[in-house]
Amino acid sequence: MQRAEAPIGVFDSGVGGLTVMREIIRQIPKERVVYFGDTARVPYGNKSRDTILKYSRQIIRFLKTKEVKTIVVACNTASAVALEEIRGELDMPIIGVIKPGAKTAIKATRNGKIGIIGTETTVRSKIYSHFIQDLNPNLTVIGKACPLFVPLVEEGEFLKSSIAAEIATHYLKDLKKEGIDTLILGCTHYPLMRKLIGQIMGEQVILVNPAYETARGLKELLKQKGLENQKEIAESENPYAFYVSDTVDKFQQFAENILTYSAENTMKINIEDY
Amino acid sequence: MQRAEAPIGVFDSGVGGLTVMREIIRQIPKERVVYFGDTARVPYGNKSRDTILKYSRQIIRFLKTKEVKTIVVACNTASAVALEEIRGELDMPIIGVIKPGAKTAIKATRNGKIGIIGTETTVRSKIYSHFIQDLNPNLTVIGKACPLFVPLVEEGEFLKSSIAAEIATHYLKDLKKEGIDTLILGCTHYPLMRKLIGQIMGEQVILVNPAYETARGLKELLKQKGLENQKEIAESENPYAFYVSDTVDKFQQFAENILTYSAENTMKINIEDY
Repeated sequence: MQRAEAPIGVFDSGVGGLTVMREIIRQIPKERVVYFGDTARVPYGNKSRDTILKYSRQIIRFLKTKEVKTIVVACNTASAVALEEIRGELDMPIIGVIKPGAKTAIKATRNGKIGIIGTETTVRSKIYSHFIQDLNPNLTVIGKACPLFVPLVEEGEFLKSSIAAEIATHYLKDLKKEGIDTLILGCTHYPLMRKLIGQIMGEQVILVNPAYETARGLKELLKQKGLENQKEIAESENPYAFYVSDTVDKFQQFAENILTYSAENTMKINIEDY
Repeated sequence: MQRAEAPIGVFDSGVGGLTVMREIIRQIPKERVVYFGDTARVPYGNKSRDTILKYSRQIIRFLKTKEVKTIVVACNTASAVALEEIRGELDMPIIGVIKPGAKTAIKATRNGKIGIIGTETTVRSKIYSHFIQDLNPNLTVIGKACPLFVPLVEEGEFLKSSIAAEIATHYLKDLKKEGIDTLILGCTHYPLMRKLIGQIMGEQVILVNPAYETARGLKELLKQKGLENQKEIAESENPYAFYVSDTVDKFQQFAENILTYSAENTMKINIEDY
């Protein structure tokens, strides 16, 4: 197989990164993708940098066995704390979700006040602030960790109830008070609560979903590096492969809901072996 | 060191098992304890049997390096899906939290209707029903998974708010309707929400905390096996050691709150190496 025909490797702590994969499929449909979800060790959002770095390295070793041509860190927490270190160890292009999200927010804001919501580890890393203020020191960035959003999405049961609305209202109230006009959904699960977050923040606040911009950035990167797949994928071939570290059932359901695409070829692997 | 002077090994997916350790310290203060919390892979409650079995085996291999004389599986999910298999592989006594909790509930019920709340994996295993109905087939056991309780306890922020009350009311409403008179808190985190659960269920419902009965069972087991520590522990010695798979800081805080005891000697280890 030619290098350009090789798959893109995408990974996340679990199912959240499927929102990034969905954008990749939409924007670059001619590419093969291998997705890994670390469902046996999910979530990453309240774990330490060292642990997430170790997990990310294991996953990249696994993805390399699938001969991927590039890697997408489709998890904000891993992008926040592990990406820069991993990039130096890698012999292929790698992109995360932070920079694309930060750039979009900079373009979107009119009053210079940007909010970012994410996991504890992502928000504590202040990485969105660093990126944004490196590019424009006049912008204000206000972060807020929303640790219950991931379990709310994963369980699903309360997502449409007043309970989710109350939790979200509580988390978002300070950002509203600060008068931000742009809000980065800094966790790949959050686009699945987009409607509720939008209702609470109000129409005047632009919600930035880094998944969209990440897929755009990936397309650009493949072009730059001459890695775009030019050869048509046969109708009979399934261009998407899914791997998880825990059982496949629950993941498959989630994947098929998010992607509206069959994930029946999902396989479980022992990630600690890598 | 004599076998009887060796420590007891206690493990859990994270901090929840500290409620069991608290009871052990209260009821058998003359024993040394080594606690392991798998904070890098927490939670276990929505993961598969195979994954939990693998993790439990790794942890037991680690505890054996600490020369423990017996093992307490202070996690309902691991007790539910891994204990029986592990027992056969082990050359020392091991106890979990399920049987002690089930026995207490049988003694407590007056109308024969017992409720059990726990994680998805624990409730799906139906292990409490099996134990209870083996001992008395006339009893009715009704299980309900409460997957948001663990993140609510771990995050803490909403525990005293109306949001926690609404979530708990929602989860518990069917058990209330069924007219249970006894409710097993089938997850080691739940005793930390005991007051709220009691308020919702009402005074007539007895709440069973398996931690208490597990410590009693452990005391009995050590006696039977001639493993009780007879020798006074020196004032200068710290009889409690704590190990975790992720960073120590957050764990230490939690441990000191639950145990009202210093956990400053907490150490991080790489559990995947075992």
